[in-house]
Amino acid sequence: MSEVVFDWDRGARIGIGEAVLCAGKSEAQVAGILRDARDRRAPLLLTRLDPALAERLDGLEYDAVSRTGWINPAPDRATGAICIVTAGTSDAPVAREAERTLAFNGHAAEMVFDVGVAGLHRLTARLDAIARHRVVIVVAGMDAALASVVGGQVPGVVIGVPTSQGYGAARGGETALAAMLASCAAGVTVTNIDNGFGAACAALRHLRGWSDG
Amino acid sequence: MSEVVFDWDRGARIGIGEAVLCAGKSEAQVAGILRDARDRRAPLLLTRLDPALAERLDGLEYDAVSRTGWINPAPDRATGAICIVTAGTSDAPVAREAERTLAFNGHAAEMVFDVGVAGLHRLTARLDAIARHRVVIVVAGMDAALASVVGGQVPGVVIGVPTSQGYGAARGGETALAAMLASCAAGVTVTNIDNGFGAACAALRHLRGWSDG
Amino acid sequence: MSEVVFDWDRGARIGIGEAVLCAGKSEAQVAGILRDARDRRAPLLLTRLDPALAERLDGLEYDAVSRTGWINPAPDRATGAICIVTAGTSDAPVAREAERTLAFNGHAAEMVFDVGVAGLHRLTARLDAIARHRVVIVVAGMDAALASVVGGQVPGVVIGVPTSQGYGAARGGETALAAMLASCAAGVTVTNIDNGFGAACAALRHLRGWSDG
Amino acid sequence: MSEVVFDWDRGARIGIGEAVLCAGKSEAQVAGILRDARDRRAPLLLTRLDPALAERLDGLEYDAVSRTGWINPAPDRATGAICIVTAGTSDAPVAREAERTLAFNGHAAEMVFDVGVAGLHRLTARLDAIARHRVVIVVAGMDAALASVVGGQVPGVVIGVPTSQGYGAARGGETALAAMLASCAAGVTVTNIDNGFGAACAALRHLRGWSDG
Amino acid sequence: MSEVVFDWDRGARIGIGEAVLCAGKSEAQVAGILRDARDRRAPLLLTRLDPALAERLDGLEYDAVSRTGWINPAPDRATGAICIVTAGTSDAPVAREAERTLAFNGHAAEMVFDVGVAGLHRLTARLDAIARHRVVIVVAGMDAALASVVGGQVPGVVIGVPTSQGYGAARGGETALAAMLASCAAGVTVTNIDNGFGAACAALRHLRGWSDG
Amino acid sequence: MSEVVFDWDRGARIGIGEAVLCAGKSEAQVAGILRDARDRRAPLLLTRLDPALAERLDGLEYDAVSRTGWINPAPDRATGAICIVTAGTSDAPVAREAERTLAFNGHAAEMVFDVGVAGLHRLTARLDAIARHRVVIVVAGMDAALASVVGGQVPGVVIGVPTSQGYGAARGGETALAAMLASCAAGVTVTNIDNGFGAACAALRHLRGWSDG
Amino acid sequence: MSEVVFDWDRGARIGIGEAVLCAGKSEAQVAGILRDARDRRAPLLLTRLDPALAERLDGLEYDAVSRTGWINPAPDRATGAICIVTAGTSDAPVAREAERTLAFNGHAAEMVFDVGVAGLHRLTARLDAIARHRVVIVVAGMDAALASVVGGQVPGVVIGVPTSQGYGAARGGETALAAMLASCAAGVTVTNIDNGFGAACAALRHLRGWSDG
Amino acid sequence: MSEVVFDWDRGARIGIGEAVLCAGKSEAQVAGILRDARDRRAPLLLTRLDPALAERLDGLEYDAVSRTGWINPAPDRATGAICIVTAGTSDAPVAREAERTLAFNGHAAEMVFDVGVAGLHRLTARLDAIARHRVVIVVAGMDAALASVVGGQVPGVVIGVPTSQGYGAARGGETALAAMLASCAAGVTVTNIDNGFGAACAALRHLRGWSDG
Repeated sequence: MSEVVFDWDRGARIGIGEAVLCAGKSEAQVAGILRDARDRRAPLLLTRLDPALAERLDGLEYDAVSRTGWINPAPDRATGAICIVTAGTSDAPVAREAERTLAFNGHAAEMVFDVGVAGLHRLTARLDAIARHRVVIVVAGMDAALASVVGGQVPGVVIGVPTSQGYGAARGGETALAAMLASCAAGVTVTNIDNGFGAACAALRHLRGWSDG
Repeated sequence: MSEVVFDWDRGARIGIGEAVLCAGKSEAQVAGILRDARDRRAPLLLTRLDPALAERLDGLEYDAVSRTGWINPAPDRATGAICIVTAGTSDAPVAREAERTLAFNGHAAEMVFDVGVAGLHRLTARLDAIARHRVVIVVAGMDAALASVVGGQVPGVVIGVPTSQGYGAARGGETALAAMLASCAAGVTVTNIDNGFGAACAALRHLRGWSDG
Repeated sequence: MSEVVFDWDRGARIGIGEAVLCAGKSEAQVAGILRDARDRRAPLLLTRLDPALAERLDGLEYDAVSRTGWINPAPDRATGAICIVTAGTSDAPVAREAERTLAFNGHAAEMVFDVGVAGLHRLTARLDAIARHRVVIVVAGMDAALASVVGGQVPGVVIGVPTSQGYGAARGGETALAAMLASCAAGVTVTNIDNGFGAACAALRHLRGWSDG
Repeated sequence: MSEVVFDWDRGARIGIGEAVLCAGKSEAQVAGILRDARDRRAPLLLTRLDPALAERLDGLEYDAVSRTGWINPAPDRATGAICIVTAGTSDAPVAREAERTLAFNGHAAEMVFDVGVAGLHRLTARLDAIARHRVVIVVAGMDAALASVVGGQVPGVVIGVPTSQGYGAARGGETALAAMLASCAAGVTVTNIDNGFGAACAALRHLRGWSDG
Repeated sequence: MSEVVFDWDRGARIGIGEAVLCAGKSEAQVAGILRDARDRRAPLLLTRLDPALAERLDGLEYDAVSRTGWINPAPDRATGAICIVTAGTSDAPVAREAERTLAFNGHAAEMVFDVGVAGLHRLTARLDAIARHRVVIVVAGMDAALASVVGGQVPGVVIGVPTSQGYGAARGGETALAAMLASCAAGVTVTNIDNGFGAACAALRHLRGWSDG
Repeated sequence: MSEVVFDWDRGARIGIGEAVLCAGKSEAQVAGILRDARDRRAPLLLTRLDPALAERLDGLEYDAVSRTGWINPAPDRATGAICIVTAGTSDAPVAREAERTLAFNGHAAEMVFDVGVAGLHRLTARLDAIARHRVVIVVAGMDAALASVVGGQVPGVVIGVPTSQGYGAARGGETALAAMLASCAAGVTVTNIDNGFGAACAALRHLRGWSDG
Repeated sequence: MSEVVFDWDRGARIGIGEAVLCAGKSEAQVAGILRDARDRRAPLLLTRLDPALAERLDGLEYDAVSRTGWINPAPDRATGAICIVTAGTSDAPVAREAERTLAFNGHAAEMVFDVGVAGLHRLTARLDAIARHRVVIVVAGMDAALASVVGGQVPGVVIGVPTSQGYGAARGGETALAAMLASCAAGVTVTNIDNGFGAACAALRHLRGWSDG
Repeated sequence: MSEVVFDWDRGARIGIGEAVLCAGKSEAQVAGILRDARDRRAPLLLTRLDPALAERLDGLEYDAVSRTGWINPAPDRATGAICIVTAGTSDAPVAREAERTLAFNGHAAEMVFDVGVAGLHRLTARLDAIARHRVVIVVAGMDAALASVVGGQVPGVVIGVPTSQGYGAARGGETALAAMLASCAAGVTVTNIDNGFGAACAALRHLRGWSDG
């Protein structure tokens, strides 16, 4: 029952490589999509892919931190346009999902880890380097204060990704999400909680407009 | 007590004209900022400005629908890069706040009104025209389904602005906000509820990267 | 303690075959109800039935995707009146629960999978076929935008079933539920989250009126 | 700015007379739609229409309890198919909005007021009469228990409309809404809080299928 | 660290036998309290006691449905004053916790199971018998409509216990709790979700006043 | 439209004098009920009655603090069984609603004001006097800690009434409500927020059982 | 009814001058407390005092920004120990309530306005001066990021006061509150939303320990 | 990927020993930080450290109740300034986390267990001893009433730590958190749910100011 009806044209239509969210899909469904992609020699990115399932899939390049796997990624285009910044060590898996999604589409991102605002000097020492990028993705949980500070200092595109890190009043990322949305830094936009993939796709939407210009 | 310490350099720093959110500020504070801007011959955009207060301020170009006023706006740069789309008639004030913020910064936006998905033909008839823009701002309340449909069809940057329209389960815009964040269209980012100003600022961040390229 | 007092007359009273929600019931309770039904040669539908428990029950026709089992289902009445539409692959279990509930009551439903609005052409290609049915059940999670689009195009009864698919701002189906309730498409009604069974029962209520007419 | 782009074909498409939610629209917008309808000699229903505004509009048949107005309603088709039931006195405005929407579309509904379950005998005395209708709309606030009782006794279509009546834990209708969704009566579907209009539209969707049969 | 400082006088002070909520306590803590009670030959009721832990405790009379255990319960006082009513099969564990707490304190309760309002005749057939009790405890989840119906028909004390049964909009018992609090039946009071113990203690408070009179 | 169908027998059935919640009812509806009661020479209590409306109603004994009015109250039965305790000055209107409801039914309550736990000595000085009553109603907002302290010291019936006093995290009484429900004092039951009327009705249910004994 | 029972000893007991929250109290109650204090020649601070009411009270020193009034404040003790920092112009009334409460108790606070993190240079320029104080009160709404940055740089006591400024996802201060609680800066504690008075009282508790040392 | 960039200077900057929250960090990350600290002979406190992981780390002094481990703690400074008070047995792990954090920094705290307000005499017997400390940390879940009572009696610093103990309306600690924030006791500040570490750090911030005085 319920064969997957995959939207192979979406990539062409909105310029983002084919990607599948594996959470909520059965092993048979994921394996079927992968087989189909391999037959078409199409690029395919699998996100939220369980490590145990990944091991049972052939020929996939898998990254355990971000739980992403791919076949036929794009060659690196060396744009140097994107920077990904994290507040704390626990935000790394989400940041890595964004990095991998960008790499799959040909954009190596510069990574700046662990510059949460409680240690302000770590951040200020890196701000000029961060601000030189066209797109900055800020990955932060708990109070997500990093997005406001970066948004106030960086002239380019700033995309906030709240993470589900923290406990109690962090409310599984809802607080970080709301704080980024209510940020006093003008023009920061936000993705869903833990959605590193979505932030990367937003960056790709921007880059297309720019590189086609 | 409590004189306003205004951040006149932010405009230069992140490339967005000086703007002040008037909600929560006293008449004296708003009038003081305006006087200061006029003395410096600086551009100034006032948002969420009460019509009654606007009438008492001299020399302001005021728009009642969006409740915005300005002095010394930038000349139009005729980029044609931005489109603002609304789902319903009641979303117009928020869309207009975005339009005015862009105009103040020199970008006339193309406006597409009342293309909510319940009347799908109105939308599909306009989709090609919408998709030609580098940045599309989608303003929608209630179920905010428009953001997902546009996000799936438009290759450029798509920014969702949830509005507080609707009643009951619309929850003052929280449902539209959550629906946009959970959208199945990849790479749509979101602003705070009713934040047309923020969406425009995000668009300006995107355009800078592009026009400087 | 606490023998089950089963309401065997409800089926006769409101015209829906006997059904039992197994979640929250002990194995002894479920087995007892099943034995009782078999003794009476009564039709019985078991929903939310754990696969491990299903294996220990004799003579049950079990479906693992929907986690439903039955004995003595009604023969198919070939009405062709009902269509079930899903937005994404992960919505299949809920759609299948609705389909099985209808089949148990003698109505084979037409299934249309994976027509979420982010790939609008997949949906528009099927809309005429969907619109021909007297009752359309729309199963969708995350932003649930599909219910609004279908509700705006289909003249018959449209029942929305929000699913718990998605993460973060999807809030376990609460966002899909609220979005369907706040939908701009007039006359769409909604069931509880993941309640495929309830949607099927609502469809049966509609069909009775019609087929008796 | 922002002329209203009205969807005059929707009525034809989904078989529900043209209707406009006036909340959130300016007086100029509402007056414009009304003028347009009058010029076309089209039927038009206005909901959530402020009494003060209604007085300034010409030739409108206005009902203050439901805050609805119309021109060119359909003649009564005497179907006798629909019953509207309320739990308490305060639910009357929402019930009346449903009644007026049905009447505008040619269906006079039977009204049963004030049969909340705390006075069970008032309800049981009316249950047989209620159960004879093809569609029963249950309007109830606070605990909304009436929907479950009616849903368990009536074989036809049962549509629940939670109302915003009550205080404290009634939470502006959220409790009634959730209680109806979680109802133990199978096949009851639900509309948004206070959405009498939507419940009537759902009834019309059902009746079309039936009367065309 | 952190020896338990137990309040052995509370029973004497407010007339309720010593009881300990085991959830959140370590095995050593529970065993220590039990040993202490046995040494004093004091009555002791343990609630929310894990079955695996119960097996490792000596000389405890344990009931697996309610997850309660006791030593030295009071002899039955045959008051016949209390009735416990449940809506559905899944509410039995909570009802049983109330029943066991009452029995531990010398009051055998009359149990009426599975009289949820969706099968109204099951309830009405029992209402006169229920109404003869001085205290009626109503245990119900999901929409909790039973509390309102019983509250409207029973002249004595009515205590509602919402249960965490149900899914989706049932929200782990929050909906049942809110619905009981917002009930239209006057003078129904409510305990925490799943708090059968608390309802029994409230009944004991009522009975003391009465039997001492 | 929508005449009120009043349940005049409820008083006889559950032993509580006729009462009407005026919030949400029109002036015509309230006046009609009052006229009807006067014609029947029946007792009638009106709660949540606006002062301006009260002035326009004839022959009503009105209390502005509790916003209650009555005709034909019961004579005082001098039971001395009930005590009402408040935490702070702002809780007085709710306490007064309970007091008036009891007085209308023939029970003068003892009032103990302003014994919130932050000034513990004020409370401990009164605890013995409070504990002598069969029923203690605790009216408290904000953290509602008073209910727990009283519940732990008083052997009789303890009914908590959370009030909507306070700001921010008090959340309009939701925090007081939740804190009372989660109270560590066994057997405290709770009414809806600000529901002094309901607490009084619960006390009346108890007293009937006792005085009939 | 309900005379105020004022706790005149609390000041002596916990070392904070007598203060009364006027919100929720009637004019007669406030006037009575003031008269009583004046008769005793006691210091008295009134908070959340409506300006219109303040005008009708004699001999009160009133501040309209903070809506506080006092009689007989303590002389300034020139400790220089406390600094109050605000993020934005709209946070001033809350900061001023803290400042006034401190002044009433003999502590003039140093005020640092408008150093929200979106303009980081304004803050970093002041950080050394801020860090020299024993107690720093941080008043911030929206994302409340300022508390985290200050908490990470200041060695002394840091108390966060979330404000209700902002709209949409700011949720009336709930987001600022949660963000401060989830802050990555260790040892920052938090008061209720808009509770400048409470923050000042906490500072007084800290200072007592210190000045008594 | 993602090496940890540790902020070794924070301790010096704000005077709190180096501490790491292990939840959300991988074993490799935790082990790396520990190795680094050992190489520097630096003090290090690990919180929320899984017992299984703790066993695999060498030379760590681990406490299973609080799930904390340390190397190189500070010698005890015998200040006797701090008291930690708990409401119930289940609050011990959080209290112990605070105690261990203080001990790691050289401050042995006095512990007062199980003085929840439902057994008021246990608390009042200890209040004088509690009130002699400069800082009192109150650890309480469910209704958290203890914080209000202590806050009203103790003149020194009072820091509330809500715990996640309880079920249903306790909402994982949210109710305790809100109740503490809304407390009627002036000047009580609050940490995140279960944040014993944070409360200890706040106490350390206070003590530094005091001991340096």
